[in-house]
Amino acid sequence: MSPSAVDLINLAWVAICSALVFFMQSGFALVEGGLSRAKNSINVIMKVYLGTCLVGIIFWATGWGLAFGPSFNGLFGVGDFALVQSKPAQGIAMIYQMMFATTAVSIVSGAVAERMRYGAYLAFAALMSLVIYPVYAHWVWNDAGWLKKMGFVDFAGDGVVHSIGAWCALAGLLVLGPRLGRYSKSGEAHDIPGHNLPMVALGGFILWLGWFGFNGGSVSGLDSANLGTVLINTYLGACAGGVGALAFQRFTGRPVLMSASINGSLCGLVSITAGAGTLNPVTAMVTGIVAGVLCVWGAERIRALRIDDAVDAIAVHGIGGTWGLIAAGLFFEGDLFSAQRVGVQLVGALASLAWALPVAWLMFKGLDKVMGLRTSTLNEQRGLDYTEHNELGYPEFQNSPAQLKMGE
Amino acid sequence: MSPSAVDLINLAWVAICSALVFFMQSGFALVEGGLSRAKNSINVIMKVYLGTCLVGIIFWATGWGLAFGPSFNGLFGVGDFALVQSKPAQGIAMIYQMMFATTAVSIVSGAVAERMRYGAYLAFAALMSLVIYPVYAHWVWNDAGWLKKMGFVDFAGDGVVHSIGAWCALAGLLVLGPRLGRYSKSGEAHDIPGHNLPMVALGGFILWLGWFGFNGGSVSGLDSANLGTVLINTYLGACAGGVGALAFQRFTGRPVLMSASINGSLCGLVSITAGAGTLNPVTAMVTGIVAGVLCVWGAERIRALRIDDAVDAIAVHGIGGTWGLIAAGLFFEGDLFSAQRVGVQLVGALASLAWALPVAWLMFKGLDKVMGLRTSTLNEQRGLDYTEHNELGYPEFQNSPAQLKMGE
Amino acid sequence: MSPSAVDLINLAWVAICSALVFFMQSGFALVEGGLSRAKNSINVIMKVYLGTCLVGIIFWATGWGLAFGPSFNGLFGVGDFALVQSKPAQGIAMIYQMMFATTAVSIVSGAVAERMRYGAYLAFAALMSLVIYPVYAHWVWNDAGWLKKMGFVDFAGDGVVHSIGAWCALAGLLVLGPRLGRYSKSGEAHDIPGHNLPMVALGGFILWLGWFGFNGGSVSGLDSANLGTVLINTYLGACAGGVGALAFQRFTGRPVLMSASINGSLCGLVSITAGAGTLNPVTAMVTGIVAGVLCVWGAERIRALRIDDAVDAIAVHGIGGTWGLIAAGLFFEGDLFSAQRVGVQLVGALASLAWALPVAWLMFKGLDKVMGLRTSTLNEQRGLDYTEHNELGYPEFQNSPAQLKMGE
Repeated sequence: MSPSAVDLINLAWVAICSALVFFMQSGFALVEGGLSRAKNSINVIMKVYLGTCLVGIIFWATGWGLAFGPSFNGLFGVGDFALVQSKPAQGIAMIYQMMFATTAVSIVSGAVAERMRYGAYLAFAALMSLVIYPVYAHWVWNDAGWLKKMGFVDFAGDGVVHSIGAWCALAGLLVLGPRLGRYSKSGEAHDIPGHNLPMVALGGFILWLGWFGFNGGSVSGLDSANLGTVLINTYLGACAGGVGALAFQRFTGRPVLMSASINGSLCGLVSITAGAGTLNPVTAMVTGIVAGVLCVWGAERIRALRIDDAVDAIAVHGIGGTWGLIAAGLFFEGDLFSAQRVGVQLVGALASLAWALPVAWLMFKGLDKVMGLRTSTLNEQRGLDYTEHNELGYPEFQNSPAQLKMGE
Repeated sequence: MSPSAVDLINLAWVAICSALVFFMQSGFALVEGGLSRAKNSINVIMKVYLGTCLVGIIFWATGWGLAFGPSFNGLFGVGDFALVQSKPAQGIAMIYQMMFATTAVSIVSGAVAERMRYGAYLAFAALMSLVIYPVYAHWVWNDAGWLKKMGFVDFAGDGVVHSIGAWCALAGLLVLGPRLGRYSKSGEAHDIPGHNLPMVALGGFILWLGWFGFNGGSVSGLDSANLGTVLINTYLGACAGGVGALAFQRFTGRPVLMSASINGSLCGLVSITAGAGTLNPVTAMVTGIVAGVLCVWGAERIRALRIDDAVDAIAVHGIGGTWGLIAAGLFFEGDLFSAQRVGVQLVGALASLAWALPVAWLMFKGLDKVMGLRTSTLNEQRGLDYTEHNELGYPEFQNSPAQLKMGE
Repeated sequence: MSPSAVDLINLAWVAICSALVFFMQSGFALVEGGLSRAKNSINVIMKVYLGTCLVGIIFWATGWGLAFGPSFNGLFGVGDFALVQSKPAQGIAMIYQMMFATTAVSIVSGAVAERMRYGAYLAFAALMSLVIYPVYAHWVWNDAGWLKKMGFVDFAGDGVVHSIGAWCALAGLLVLGPRLGRYSKSGEAHDIPGHNLPMVALGGFILWLGWFGFNGGSVSGLDSANLGTVLINTYLGACAGGVGALAFQRFTGRPVLMSASINGSLCGLVSITAGAGTLNPVTAMVTGIVAGVLCVWGAERIRALRIDDAVDAIAVHGIGGTWGLIAAGLFFEGDLFSAQRVGVQLVGALASLAWALPVAWLMFKGLDKVMGLRTSTLNEQRGLDYTEHNELGYPEFQNSPAQLKMGE
C-alpha cells in the first residue's frame, strides 16, 4: 500500500524535526564551550561533536532495537537492530530517536568539562548509549515498557533524555571531583567564568529553536494531536523560565547574570517537555516559572555541595527534569492535582535516578581503572586543548593569557 | 470535522516557518552584539533574549487578541485573549504571529545599544508589545482593519514589523541621545567599531535564513498561493540588496565594509517584505538594489543628524521598510506605477510613523521619569556588562582592553 | 489543475530543504573564517556572503536555464532563463538548485583564503556560476545530459557541487601559489593555525544540518522514494567520517585535531552524497570511514605538494567527492562491485576534473591579467580585512597581535 498524503506529511514533519533536534548538538557545544575557559573550549566542543558521531552509529546498531524493538518483559527490546531495509516511517522515526539519544549524551560533556580526558569521555558516551539510555527509553516509550504501562507521562523525553543525561553527569562529577582551584581550602567556591558568553547565548537560542522539533515532532501524528497546544506550551514554558530566573535574581538582590537567565529559559524548556501535550498554556507557564527559579537556586545548592558542574547541567536537566515530570502529573489537563498521577510520575522520576546514577557511576569507575578518567594536574593547568589535541581555540588571542594563567 | 491533508500541510508549514522566524532573534542578538563593543555585548544580547521571553507571554495574553481578535471599529481587537483551547490552525497562527511581534521588538534593542539600562529596555519591550505593535498589526492585517480595507498591501510585515520597530527605535534614540564619545564637540562623528564582525556575518546569514519563514509562511495557504514566486522574490531581493550596497560603496569610492554590505542585503530583505507576493523577480531585484543603496546612504545621513543608531537599524528597517511599502505599490504586478496604489501605500507608511513615533516617545519619556532610561556616565564608560550584570562577555580576552579603555 | 496534497507536501519539503541548504553558506563562512587568521577573517566571510548574493542573481538569470532548460545535444540548456511566471513546483525547484550552485562556489573561497583579492574572487564566482557549474550540472542532472544517459549516479551533487567546487579551488591555488610564510625555503610547510576553532566547529554542525536538506530534498518526491534510507545513509556517513578521521589520527600517532576530525565528518557527508539513494547503511558507513581517513591523509599529501589550501577544501570536497562517486558505483545496492558501474562513475568523476580544472585555470589566469588576482605582499602581511575593507574582525582583541605580526 502506498503511503497516504497524511502519512507523507507526518514523514516530512518528523524528518524536519529530526534536523532541528540534531542542531541542538551545536547548541550544547556552544553553551558548554562558552562556559568553559578558552584553554578547554576545543576539548569540550570536540566531545560533543565526536560524541554525536559515535552515538549515531551505536544507536543505529543497537539503541533503536533495545529501546523500540519487541520487548523482553517490559525491560528492553530484543529486535530491529541495525535497520537496513526499513519502511519509510520507521527509518525516519529511528533517525528522530537517534537525535534524542545524542541529546542525552551531550548533556554529560558539559558538566564534566575542563578535566575529563576526551578518550574516557567518548568511551562513556558509547557505554551510555549502549546501555543506560535505550533501556530507560524502553521503559517509558515502548508500548510494553513497565513505566508506560503504569501510565507514566513523558511526552518528549523529560525523563528519558534530560533526567537520564543529568544523572549520568552527576555520576561523572562524583567520580571526577571538582576542577583545580574551584574550591578554596575552606570550602568556598571560586567563580570560574566562561570565556565566551555571546557563544553561550547563541547556544541558548539554538537549543530553544531545537525544541520546536524536540516537542513538536513528538506528537503522535499531525492529524491526531493538537500541535498548536504543544508548541504554545513549549514556547511559553521557555519564556516563563527566562522571566522566572530573571525575576528571582532581580528580587533577591542577586546580580542578573546572562548565563543564569539563559539557563532559566532552558530549564523552562526541560520542565515543559514531559507535559507539553497534556498541560494548558497557564499551567505551562507556572511550570516554567518554577523551573526558572529552581534552576538558579538549585545551581547554587549544588555548588555548595562541592559538586563542580561546569555548566549547571544538573540544575537545568536534573532538577528541571524532575520538576517537569512532577508538573506533568500535577497539572494534567482535565485531571488536575491527582495524587495518583503525581505518584506515578514520582516513580518514573525515581526510576531514572535509580537506574542511571549507579550504573553510570560504575561505568565511570571502571573507565577510571582501565584508562584513567581525569587528566593530570599539569595538563589541567595547561588546558586540555593544548595537551590533548595540540590545538588552541584562539591561538592569536589566547597566547599570553594562557602563559600567564599556567600556574593557576 | 477532522482536518484535511491540505490543512495539515499548511499547519506543518506555518509551524516550521515559526521556528525559522524565532531563530531570527538569534540573528538580531548576533548582529547587535557584534556591532557593539565587547563591554556591552552581553547587555544587548540579553535584551534580545529576555525581550523574547517577555514578548512571548504578553503577545499570548493580549497581543494576539488586540491584533487578530474581533475588531472594534477597525482600530483594535477585543477578543481571543489568552488562547487556551484553540483549534490547531489558530494555535499555530498565534505562535507564528508571536514571532513577528518579537521581531519588531528586537529591532529596537540594537539601535539603543551601549547606553540604555536593561530594566528600562525590558519595560519598553513590554509596553511596545502591549500597545504599539498589536494595534498597527490590527490596522493592516485584521480583515476589519482600516488600512486593510483601504487596500494597503503589506505582505509579511514590512510596515507592521520593520517600520514599527524602526520608529520605536528612533523614539528611543531621540530621548536617549548619542553614546559618550560618539560626536566630537564640533559635531563630527567618531567611528565606534563593533567588536566581533564574524558574529555580525553569522547574524546576517541567520536573518536571511529566517526570511524563508518570514515571507514563506505568510502565504495564505500553500494551495492558494505561489510560494515559488514569494521565495524567489525574497531571495533575489536579498541578493540585490547586498550587490547594491557593494556596488554603491565601490563606485562612490567608499571603503567596502562587510558590515554595510550585510546591512544592504538585510535592507533588501526588509524592502521585499511588503510586496513579495505581488512583485515579479525583476521588480523584486530593482526594489532590493535601491534598498541596498538607500541603506548605505541613509545610515550616513542619519549619523550626520547626530542620531546615534549603534547598528543602523533605522536605515535598514525604517528607510528600507518605507521604501518597501512604496515599492509594493509602484511595482504591483499587473498594475504597475498606479498612483492610487502608491498613495495608499504612503498612507500606511505614514500611519506607522504617526502612530509609533509619538507613542513610543511618550513611553520612553515616561520610563525615563519613572525608572531612568540611561545608565550613568561612569557605568557607560565601564560598560553595561560589568555594571548591570556582573559578567563580562570575554573575561580572558577583555581584561586589559577594558581597563585601558576605562577613561574613554 | 490545482495541485494535489502530495504535490503540496513535496513543494513544502523542497522549500524547507532549500532553506537548510542556504544555511550551509553560513557554515562555509564560519569554517573558512575560523580557519583563517583573524586579519583575513572578514575578507573570507565577505567573499562567501557576497558570493551568495551574486550567484543567486546569476543562477536565476542564466544558470537554471543552462542546467535544466531544454538541452542542446546533451551539452547545455537553451531555455527557461530568468524565470518570471513559473509553476510553483518549478519555482521552488529553481530556488533549491540555486542553493546548490551557491554551495559549489562557496567551496572555492576557503581554499584560496588569505591572499586572493575579493574583487577578483567575486569575478571568478560570477564566471564559475555562469559557465562551469551549470554545464556540468546539465550533463549529470538534465534528462538529456550525456552523463545522465550513461547511467552516471550522482544523487545530490557529489560531483556536481563538491568535485566541481574542489577542482575550481585547485585551479585557483595553482595560479595563486601558497601564502607568504607557508613554506620555508627548504620546502617544509609551516602551520598557519586558524584563529577561531569554536567558530569552525559551529560551521561544521551547520554544514551537517544543511545536509539534511542537501540529500533529503534530492529525493524525487516523498511518495516515490525512501526518505528514511537517504537520511540514515547521510547521517551514518557523517558519523563514520568523523570516527574514521578520529581513529586514523589516534592509531597512527598523529595528534587528534578538532579541525581534522570535523573535516573528516564533512568528508563523510560529501562522500555519501553521490550514493545516498542507492547505498545501504552498512555500505554508507564504509564509504564514510574511508572518506574520513582519506581526508586526513589526503590533506597532508596535498600540503606536501606545496598546494596551500587554507581549509583543506580539496581534500574534503575533491578527494571526498571523487571517492564518493566511485563508492556509489562500487556499493550500488542490488548490484555490488559492478565494474561497469564503477567505470561509468569514473568517467563522470574524470569529466568533472577535465571540465572544471582547465576552464577555471583559464578564468583565473585571465582575471589575473585583467584585474590582478593576488593582493600585494605588504597587504598580505597586514591582512586583507584592513587593506581591502578598512575593517577588522575583532578591533578590541586584535590590535596588538596585528601590529606584532606585521613583519611576519
